[in-house]
Amino acid sequence: MFLPILFIFSLLPFSHSAVQDFCVGDLALPDNPAGYPCKKPAKVTVNDFVFSALGIAGNTSNLIKAAVTPAFVAQFPGLNGLGLSLARLDLAVDGVVPMHTHPGASEVLFVLEGTICAGFISSANAVYFKQLSKGDIMIFPQGLLHFQINSGKGVAIAIVSFSSPSPGLQITDFALFGNNLPTELVVKTTFLDEAQVKKLKGVLGGTG
Amino acid sequence: MFLPILFIFSLLPFSHSAVQDFCVGDLALPDNPAGYPCKKPAKVTVNDFVFSALGIAGNTSNLIKAAVTPAFVAQFPGLNGLGLSLARLDLAVDGVVPMHTHPGASEVLFVLEGTICAGFISSANAVYFKQLSKGDIMIFPQGLLHFQINSGKGVAIAIVSFSSPSPGLQITDFALFGNNLPTELVVKTTFLDEAQVKKLKGVLGGTG
Amino acid sequence: MFLPILFIFSLLPFSHSAVQDFCVGDLALPDNPAGYPCKKPAKVTVNDFVFSALGIAGNTSNLIKAAVTPAFVAQFPGLNGLGLSLARLDLAVDGVVPMHTHPGASEVLFVLEGTICAGFISSANAVYFKQLSKGDIMIFPQGLLHFQINSGKGVAIAIVSFSSPSPGLQITDFALFGNNLPTELVVKTTFLDEAQVKKLKGVLGGTG
Amino acid sequence: MFLPILFIFSLLPFSHSAVQDFCVGDLALPDNPAGYPCKKPAKVTVNDFVFSALGIAGNTSNLIKAAVTPAFVAQFPGLNGLGLSLARLDLAVDGVVPMHTHPGASEVLFVLEGTICAGFISSANAVYFKQLSKGDIMIFPQGLLHFQINSGKGVAIAIVSFSSPSPGLQITDFALFGNNLPTELVVKTTFLDEAQVKKLKGVLGGTG
Amino acid sequence: MFLPILFIFSLLPFSHSAVQDFCVGDLALPDNPAGYPCKKPAKVTVNDFVFSALGIAGNTSNLIKAAVTPAFVAQFPGLNGLGLSLARLDLAVDGVVPMHTHPGASEVLFVLEGTICAGFISSANAVYFKQLSKGDIMIFPQGLLHFQINSGKGVAIAIVSFSSPSPGLQITDFALFGNNLPTELVVKTTFLDEAQVKKLKGVLGGTG
Amino acid sequence: MFLPILFIFSLLPFSHSAVQDFCVGDLALPDNPAGYPCKKPAKVTVNDFVFSALGIAGNTSNLIKAAVTPAFVAQFPGLNGLGLSLARLDLAVDGVVPMHTHPGASEVLFVLEGTICAGFISSANAVYFKQLSKGDIMIFPQGLLHFQINSGKGVAIAIVSFSSPSPGLQITDFALFGNNLPTELVVKTTFLDEAQVKKLKGVLGGTG
Repeated sequence: MFLPILFIFSLLPFSHSAVQDFCVGDLALPDNPAGYPCKKPAKVTVNDFVFSALGIAGNTSNLIKAAVTPAFVAQFPGLNGLGLSLARLDLAVDGVVPMHTHPGASEVLFVLEGTICAGFISSANAVYFKQLSKGDIMIFPQGLLHFQINSGKGVAIAIVSFSSPSPGLQITDFALFGNNLPTELVVKTTFLDEAQVKKLKGVLGGTG
Repeated sequence: MFLPILFIFSLLPFSHSAVQDFCVGDLALPDNPAGYPCKKPAKVTVNDFVFSALGIAGNTSNLIKAAVTPAFVAQFPGLNGLGLSLARLDLAVDGVVPMHTHPGASEVLFVLEGTICAGFISSANAVYFKQLSKGDIMIFPQGLLHFQINSGKGVAIAIVSFSSPSPGLQITDFALFGNNLPTELVVKTTFLDEAQVKKLKGVLGGTG
Repeated sequence: MFLPILFIFSLLPFSHSAVQDFCVGDLALPDNPAGYPCKKPAKVTVNDFVFSALGIAGNTSNLIKAAVTPAFVAQFPGLNGLGLSLARLDLAVDGVVPMHTHPGASEVLFVLEGTICAGFISSANAVYFKQLSKGDIMIFPQGLLHFQINSGKGVAIAIVSFSSPSPGLQITDFALFGNNLPTELVVKTTFLDEAQVKKLKGVLGGTG
Repeated sequence: MFLPILFIFSLLPFSHSAVQDFCVGDLALPDNPAGYPCKKPAKVTVNDFVFSALGIAGNTSNLIKAAVTPAFVAQFPGLNGLGLSLARLDLAVDGVVPMHTHPGASEVLFVLEGTICAGFISSANAVYFKQLSKGDIMIFPQGLLHFQINSGKGVAIAIVSFSSPSPGLQITDFALFGNNLPTELVVKTTFLDEAQVKKLKGVLGGTG
Repeated sequence: MFLPILFIFSLLPFSHSAVQDFCVGDLALPDNPAGYPCKKPAKVTVNDFVFSALGIAGNTSNLIKAAVTPAFVAQFPGLNGLGLSLARLDLAVDGVVPMHTHPGASEVLFVLEGTICAGFISSANAVYFKQLSKGDIMIFPQGLLHFQINSGKGVAIAIVSFSSPSPGLQITDFALFGNNLPTELVVKTTFLDEAQVKKLKGVLGGTG
Repeated sequence: MFLPILFIFSLLPFSHSAVQDFCVGDLALPDNPAGYPCKKPAKVTVNDFVFSALGIAGNTSNLIKAAVTPAFVAQFPGLNGLGLSLARLDLAVDGVVPMHTHPGASEVLFVLEGTICAGFISSANAVYFKQLSKGDIMIFPQGLLHFQINSGKGVAIAIVSFSSPSPGLQITDFALFGNNLPTELVVKTTFLDEAQVKKLKGVLGGTG
């Protein structure tokens, strides 16, 4: 007697192809300003929506004693088109995430463990920084220079959220000293001493 | 004497390919978060912008005594990228469009014929419902539970507009009882009695 | 025994003020590029979401034998921020909605009654027009010149949807001949004969 | 000798008022579809960007054995206009966040502690659910029904990110049974038995 | 001793493919509502971001004595997805850019040389026009009819910016008289005299 | 005989208040994430859409030998909500616009006069720079570090367009050395030598 209801619902002309609840990115195809083309719905499984890499501590055995593990659209294509992404930040004792910007997203950091001194500088050149404890969250608005320093005596861990699946990351030192931008241009556009520029180019592998 | 004007205008470097007034969707290609790739302008005709299916009454010979006929991008690819779509709603006597949401769009309903009792519930849990007569329009904000019931003595018909070419549709009953979501999970997450869940799973073809 | 559940839900820290499902416009306050400030949720009732003026035929006892009745945000503030609006179009026999654009929205027209010859012209200067019958829908992409003519023997009525709560309307004749734009400038920028311009300025109340 | 540089930079006509890096919400003023008016930059301090409430466990001494602590724009006005927000989820043993939607945002959940069985249902009625362990993240696309259940033997904690400062929350049970929506309308639009509806209305404080 | 820093930065999992700072359009692939698919980053060079055609005066040896040289996405694919574009306007003595709209963008004009009388007409039918001198800038809001006339004794040149990589251009005369829109429809929708319509159709190459 | 047409048009229910073609910002009221509240249409004149300050050379009698003159929403409120803005750049011989970002907009530069060496660095750390001559245009994508240097023997002038009415400006040197960010934090987050930091803090007026 009730079977007709089922029948009716099945006839509703809202087939799978008519709906775009999500758009798991097919990274094999070229992206466009809106993101990647969608994987066919029939091939999407729950595993397209679950990602486990943020559960593993990054390797901080390095000079900055820090590691960033992203869950951006390139690593986690289920985020394609959904307007957000995450990353994990590991800071060993004395670890530092150097001055950087995210050109494409605002960020909110949640301190999972330890103590972090974090801050940003506004376009109006105001400085906002604070010691953050476990459970604190802090905002870093889109495109502004900011940093995070482990200011405690043990390891610090944070989960950061971004307002884009592809926030980008531009580390100032890396942009200035870690590529082939001629020393002369760096000096002219930063007022740094040439010796300082050459020293950091040496450290960061820059040429020219 | 005047021909040079024609010549000049023709020389204006705004060729067909330089302009994107519209983007009729090519449904054979994969979509992305912005919609479908565009059909080549040279192949677009007026028929890409005209659709006739909403002129035909949907078949309401079913238990809910209702039918929804969509003109979404999947049915009417001329809407691709334009930010709106339509649908037709037919309600026989006692017909009901059960509690549902559109995850991707707000809706405005226009009563073409008959009397409809329609309502929605807000995030703040306020209930807004009213008897609508021919010519009335009513708003259902994006993502909120809403319903429409034929509250008159004859057929009711409505035209509904959406703020997206692909609004989506999630009928609560269908989502809870019409698929393979285990009964145990439905019971735990809805507080419904197990017997009630099994009864509706039976009606709506759900398994597990 | 069950009362604690109620208690728990009530404690969920999602108060009314924490949620913006909708934003009924307060037209008494200044608008901004996103629309109007929101009426306080506590003052919102179902009547803010229901509008009845589209049920009444517009007065077509005029030379163009046509009337447009809008349900834009200015008439129906419940649409504020929701990305869509409606209007009703009445065309008496021989009625015409003259060549016009909507600077802020794409449009879809649904023929409620009668026969309408409707069309638009693209940036690439292609012309798309067709005879529409009852139940047909037709798209007019944002910002493009378009028109509607009653091409039948009786009254024609249409419901039009827009992809913005504030689509705007610029009737070409009215813009060229119905204001104080000097005749000399109209002639220079349209190549129309001065006599033609002056004639239509006379008809449409233009000066200068 | 170098002072003139300072002088020059100071003269750059980019005063504080010329820049909108952020817009800390002034909750005392009416919001609009884009959010709240901005607090004056001169009154903004680092404390507008830091929020500590997510560090404290929510009270789960209740029947659902769960608590949600939001850091939405209403609690944390620094998020205004930035396109993201966070919340903390505490689930005691057997705790459940019942079936619900966020009308205004997609969500990503990060498991801080414990084991969570989480899932969502798409518009196409496909079910996606999985057991999540500490460190796993899972996506819940905008507007779709989803749930979280503590499936482990101890407490479970999660941090959830949203793609909007004001994601909204509609708990299905609360919307159907926790307000004054008449029992008759609930029955008609859900196909639930009247006794079931009345039972849950009793539990959740609904009337009518 | 410092080499490990380099090593660390190199290990940061932000590979080229993880980042979308820009999306140089691949015009050989079909576009979509968000623009064109991106050229592979490895193939992008500085020449994708530099364009020289606006440095060359357009040919104004024609009846309108004007030329428009666009740098839209179709000419300059580096603009794809970036939300702006430019064009150069050359007006010989007595030159005119006839009444037109840009359906997809607002415009700001900067007078490089000479004197220009420019204006636009609002939806509310208000007329805004002014004599502009070298160095003046003027706004033309999206979708509104506007014009530019060389009102000086020498050549006039302007650089115009648009708020879209693909602003479109609809010249009213060209749309009304330069295609196959039947004379009868033009007369009915513009109230122009048939003789006037036929005369301009003759000049602008229109048929029908 | 024709007067009724005028009458009809006047009756069209599209009053001034129903239309939002533009929204000239009222800078006296608080802004919000979408911009400033709109000046009342009745008070808007053509002068709200015309701005003359870009016609005047900036004062480059300073150490960087450069000046930037903005026409952002704060200087030119007619741009409010329209999605673009302009600025003028004057570079005396040897003038430099130091390394900087615009957190809120992409930029296109048009060389009005002289020769400019301009470049930017991507998130993927690729360097794009080139000598630009009069008439060349160059793109600087949103949020990326970029610079402009007068590389010719005379004055250089450029007009720059932005994809936002409020692009922001963060000059790296000013952000690092021109405020009260403690030297210790600058050193830790940039790897610069302390002496270098103190030297530039001295030059740029930084403290701490």
